[in-house]
Amino acid sequence: MTITLAVDCMGGDHGPAVVVPAVLEFLRHDPECAAILVGRESELTPFLAHADGVLAGRWSVQHASEVVDMHDPVATALRVKKDSSLRVMANLVKEGRADAAVSAGNTGALMAVSRFVLKTLPGIERPAIATALPTLRGHSYVLDLGANVDCAPEHLLQFGIMGAMLVSALEHKERPTVGLLNIGEEDIKGNEVVKRAGELLKESGLNFIGNVEGDDIYKGTADVVVCDGFVGNVALKTSEGLARMISTFLRQEFARNPLTRLAGLFAMPVLKSFKARVDPRRYNGASLLGLKGVVVKSHGSADSFAYRHALEQAAEAARQKLPEKIAARMAMVAPVGMLCD
Amino acid sequence: MTITLAVDCMGGDHGPAVVVPAVLEFLRHDPECAAILVGRESELTPFLAHADGVLAGRWSVQHASEVVDMHDPVATALRVKKDSSLRVMANLVKEGRADAAVSAGNTGALMAVSRFVLKTLPGIERPAIATALPTLRGHSYVLDLGANVDCAPEHLLQFGIMGAMLVSALEHKERPTVGLLNIGEEDIKGNEVVKRAGELLKESGLNFIGNVEGDDIYKGTADVVVCDGFVGNVALKTSEGLARMISTFLRQEFARNPLTRLAGLFAMPVLKSFKARVDPRRYNGASLLGLKGVVVKSHGSADSFAYRHALEQAAEAARQKLPEKIAARMAMVAPVGMLCD
Repeated sequence: MTITLAVDCMGGDHGPAVVVPAVLEFLRHDPECAAILVGRESELTPFLAHADGVLAGRWSVQHASEVVDMHDPVATALRVKKDSSLRVMANLVKEGRADAAVSAGNTGALMAVSRFVLKTLPGIERPAIATALPTLRGHSYVLDLGANVDCAPEHLLQFGIMGAMLVSALEHKERPTVGLLNIGEEDIKGNEVVKRAGELLKESGLNFIGNVEGDDIYKGTADVVVCDGFVGNVALKTSEGLARMISTFLRQEFARNPLTRLAGLFAMPVLKSFKARVDPRRYNGASLLGLKGVVVKSHGSADSFAYRHALEQAAEAARQKLPEKIAARMAMVAPVGMLCD
Repeated sequence: MTITLAVDCMGGDHGPAVVVPAVLEFLRHDPECAAILVGRESELTPFLAHADGVLAGRWSVQHASEVVDMHDPVATALRVKKDSSLRVMANLVKEGRADAAVSAGNTGALMAVSRFVLKTLPGIERPAIATALPTLRGHSYVLDLGANVDCAPEHLLQFGIMGAMLVSALEHKERPTVGLLNIGEEDIKGNEVVKRAGELLKESGLNFIGNVEGDDIYKGTADVVVCDGFVGNVALKTSEGLARMISTFLRQEFARNPLTRLAGLFAMPVLKSFKARVDPRRYNGASLLGLKGVVVKSHGSADSFAYRHALEQAAEAARQKLPEKIAARMAMVAPVGMLCD
């Protein structure tokens, strides 16, 4: 079965210059996929010159006259720019012409438009954003990363379900472990919302392993780490900041004098393989979960290599019918959810 | 003026074996300080053999028959073990026999006992825990780190005031910058508590620079980063986990084969000076703020080098009369605080 991706070619820092080549490269590697390139046709065409015969019939262009800017308010994306590449992309999924959508555009607008066009799955009140992070044991998925800042315990339960289904789909794990992000102070284990969420997760039938702490994210203690969007966003951004500081300090120390620069030359291959292991480009692609359709957000600054990872993720989620899996799992816990209301 | 520290020698993973030598070393380097070593006299004595003549008259032992374990509930520390080293240490500060207290014991118990014995400063409803972290520009202080998980906007304002006074005292900065930890999603900038806290901080007269995001912690965007204890704890622990993962990966890559091990030998001096720059031991010592007295918590696993940093921090905070500074600053914003109630 061919999986067709609708790709917003106008989003991100580099627009079609990065997205179109990434899509073509992706199609070359995955012969079972097709793509609909969405955006201003005249701006996409120059980059399609490299689409050789191998790809014939597996890509098409869907013109969209408008572009949602990074700074456009959500209201503009929803109510003004109705022919934006974002909106047209989401419509392609809704109409069944595409199996998944990928965009590097404005996250808030992408979430709002996707939610408006595709709607949420039955029982899901809040869609969430999830991404994979490298860990000592492989990688783990964290959600929510910023779509929901004030969460009720029921929302954290839903994040657990969606995260577990995501890992099932992408990693083909039968019963992924789910941890609830909490803090370890002896006398005050978490706030009221988290405490109640822990009880709900315990009753959910998920492979819930209990509370985990911040350092457990990178230990790989759980396949899925559940938290509200405020906490998840801070954890993710703090990690980005720390990684950048460490890499800056390392560079500075190796650049200190001729001797350290020489040491840097010797260490280069090792540092390169280290860097490849934690390369954030390999983890590019955040899943918008809980919608009636697969939507993946690429980092705005993604290069072609990183963008391909987002495309692969979207294709796999669509192939595994992730939204259907989430809906089925939600139906199983619905009685529990109702008990809590 | 001599600053006298009351030091709980029984706390931490190593107890007197680490704490007593650290205190003696600290006294050797700072002739204007004295110390009261608190704990089971018989267990401290063996380590005092190295106390040479230079230190004569600058240290004494205060016997305390009990020890609060890492796993003791707060209630035990408060109501059962009334002759614990923790309690006796706090009493020494209360009675004015010591100017500051330092312990590597159980954080929850330390906070509860300190609060019970010393009481909070006028206007402070919730004491907070703050620590310094390395940044691209130097270092920044983050609070709260876990003492308060459900905060009202007024508490975040108080954290801002306490953090600013801490940086004034320890770094001798006149008007340290204060940032409010928030998330960057375009349409949903933070939860209700954080939004309101931002307004209070704006009116506070502090050098408030507005919202900062997780990555700003390590960029050094603000001298003080304010957040609730849940978020702060997650940010800190996530950072610890990431730093450990990076250092493990680096070690693994350099240990891969004889060639990489050789490269590691060449790179060793550089890696060492890198490590020194981010050495968490240099940042050991978390301040318990908002109490009528200076209390510093050392990491439980601190070695003698790390412990000395906690002692130095406590001495400097006492020298700068940190609690008095916080009280004076609180008095200035009290009218604002009352408006918010």
